[in-house]
Amino acid sequence: MAVTIKDVAKKAGVSPSTVSRVLSNHPRISKETSIKVKNIMNELGYHSNMMARSLVSNKTYTLGMILPRPAEELFQNHFFAENIRGITTQAARNGYDVLMTAGANDSDEMEAITRLVLGRRVDGIILLQSRKHDPIITFLREHDFPFVLIGRYEEDPNVLCVDNDNIQAAFDATSHLISQGHTRIGFVSGPPSLSVSQDRLEGYRQALAEHQLQMKSEWIVEGEFLQESGYRAMSFFMSLPERPTALVIIDDVVSFGVMRGLTELGYSVPEDLSIIGFNNISLTELSTPPLSSIDIGIYQLGYMASQMLIKRIQGETQPQPRTIVPHRLMIRESSLHYKAKRSGV
Amino acid sequence: MAVTIKDVAKKAGVSPSTVSRVLSNHPRISKETSIKVKNIMNELGYHSNMMARSLVSNKTYTLGMILPRPAEELFQNHFFAENIRGITTQAARNGYDVLMTAGANDSDEMEAITRLVLGRRVDGIILLQSRKHDPIITFLREHDFPFVLIGRYEEDPNVLCVDNDNIQAAFDATSHLISQGHTRIGFVSGPPSLSVSQDRLEGYRQALAEHQLQMKSEWIVEGEFLQESGYRAMSFFMSLPERPTALVIIDDVVSFGVMRGLTELGYSVPEDLSIIGFNNISLTELSTPPLSSIDIGIYQLGYMASQMLIKRIQGETQPQPRTIVPHRLMIRESSLHYKAKRSGV
Repeated sequence: MAVTIKDVAKKAGVSPSTVSRVLSNHPRISKETSIKVKNIMNELGYHSNMMARSLVSNKTYTLGMILPRPAEELFQNHFFAENIRGITTQAARNGYDVLMTAGANDSDEMEAITRLVLGRRVDGIILLQSRKHDPIITFLREHDFPFVLIGRYEEDPNVLCVDNDNIQAAFDATSHLISQGHTRIGFVSGPPSLSVSQDRLEGYRQALAEHQLQMKSEWIVEGEFLQESGYRAMSFFMSLPERPTALVIIDDVVSFGVMRGLTELGYSVPEDLSIIGFNNISLTELSTPPLSSIDIGIYQLGYMASQMLIKRIQGETQPQPRTIVPHRLMIRESSLHYKAKRSGV
Repeated sequence: MAVTIKDVAKKAGVSPSTVSRVLSNHPRISKETSIKVKNIMNELGYHSNMMARSLVSNKTYTLGMILPRPAEELFQNHFFAENIRGITTQAARNGYDVLMTAGANDSDEMEAITRLVLGRRVDGIILLQSRKHDPIITFLREHDFPFVLIGRYEEDPNVLCVDNDNIQAAFDATSHLISQGHTRIGFVSGPPSLSVSQDRLEGYRQALAEHQLQMKSEWIVEGEFLQESGYRAMSFFMSLPERPTALVIIDDVVSFGVMRGLTELGYSVPEDLSIIGFNNISLTELSTPPLSSIDIGIYQLGYMASQMLIKRIQGETQPQPRTIVPHRLMIRESSLHYKAKRSGV
């Protein structure tokens, strides 16, 4: 005969509603009660059918996530892995699992989201990238479905999001290069549809303006978050009659592509071209020379997004819709001593 | 009034059972029929409640996965991200989502697995690491629950698994170092409880034995899949009165720790110590010198595991329980020309 909640309650000396609360991870249940009840469940062999329970409570205790598309594959290897670790760690602490679905293109992604939302497969969704006029956001807003964006969404200031101050971060990176004596500074950007590309370009622009430095359109190149994009940007810059002497690069992986290209052509970093990237992935310390980078707190972005979404699902009011994760300038050899080295000191 | 399957069937000019099959991703439904029916569903605003449907069909169209623990964090950044990409891509192609759950320790992991299996939250599970006498495997076997292991499980040859031939891979890596003139070769291993550590150590041992080379116990060091482990192993080896001249290293990230340590102490790779790693992560090409590595097909391991599990869930017979993903020796500067360089040629 199947063990029921009543059996568990009786044996544990608590009310059946307390057992239900343990099952639904209710915040008012103490750690001790929860452990005691769970031990008795295991002892008696009780296991609720989570799905049946979901139908009743209308909760799945699951957060949904759409994986980035194949075109952004390499981006995953560093940014995404760390981001997902933050999301999942915080979710697990609150008794939530994470459901991942993958879409090969825009219409696939939209179908996946529809399935998760209308099929009630998750309680909320974390969006890993922000695009302008995103139809997914429109859909989620229409259905009043909880979601948190990693990035920002200027079309609607009420969208919950976790972001860096990317304008300030790129401003700081560019100012650092200026402080090293550079006056000809280029920018390697990401896909123009992403807000992260737009914001970092703006920060670069502001820093140059503040120092009355020239911003030449040929010193700005767009690409993907791939090594190859860095390689191509480097080839282009080095072919210019008037080359930049330093680059702000949207992503460390792209920076590695620039460095590889320079090494192949016999140029040196930082002497021929000083560079600084974003993300501060673990391998920045290992490249030759070690790569300067902006630490944007990738793990924390995921962790905060997860926390914010769970609060939203549980009906807690958020003090403000936007959380900013601070960034940090990590200065290494790739952007240092340009002047000293050029003059052979 | 809610739109029903019948409404969709009528409008699409198919039978209601065809619509059901489209909903359950039945393999006998043609791509065209599926697209036609789905378009009509969207048009009419039909959406099945996936959970209600799951309760009836007893299928969730979801694969479960337990994330590696914090102690193996860095391992995730490269191996895990690529692995998960393979798993999710193949799952998505078959209409499956992937549910991730994280456990901070052994008992958390066991609880998570219990929840997924007994709560019927997933149709099957992919295990990302294989340990000896794994209680999770015992549990899954007892419940006759579909699962696939990435790795191998010698206690039970019927366990479905996707693996490399790690003995042969380490044999090949060691033989390559021998072919470069090395006679004193060390091994940096991973946690001894993992089958991957045991197998690669065995391959190293076999290669030395075949060439009648000495295997000294002090030339074998165990550690985690972390840069720090490589750094520590390097310090230890360089302090020995009789040092190895080459190392086989269980993981590229560990190899980077060795390289960093050597550089800091003023030693050169490959002249003072030649090294070869495993995994062939993208940054092996970018280190100075570029790192030799065994490409083990991480993406393919995940992709095959996902495919195998879906077949198992759908009741297809597997020709054999074990699939081997081939490996490839990627020789780069870190393990080449040892003799020539030592003699100053």
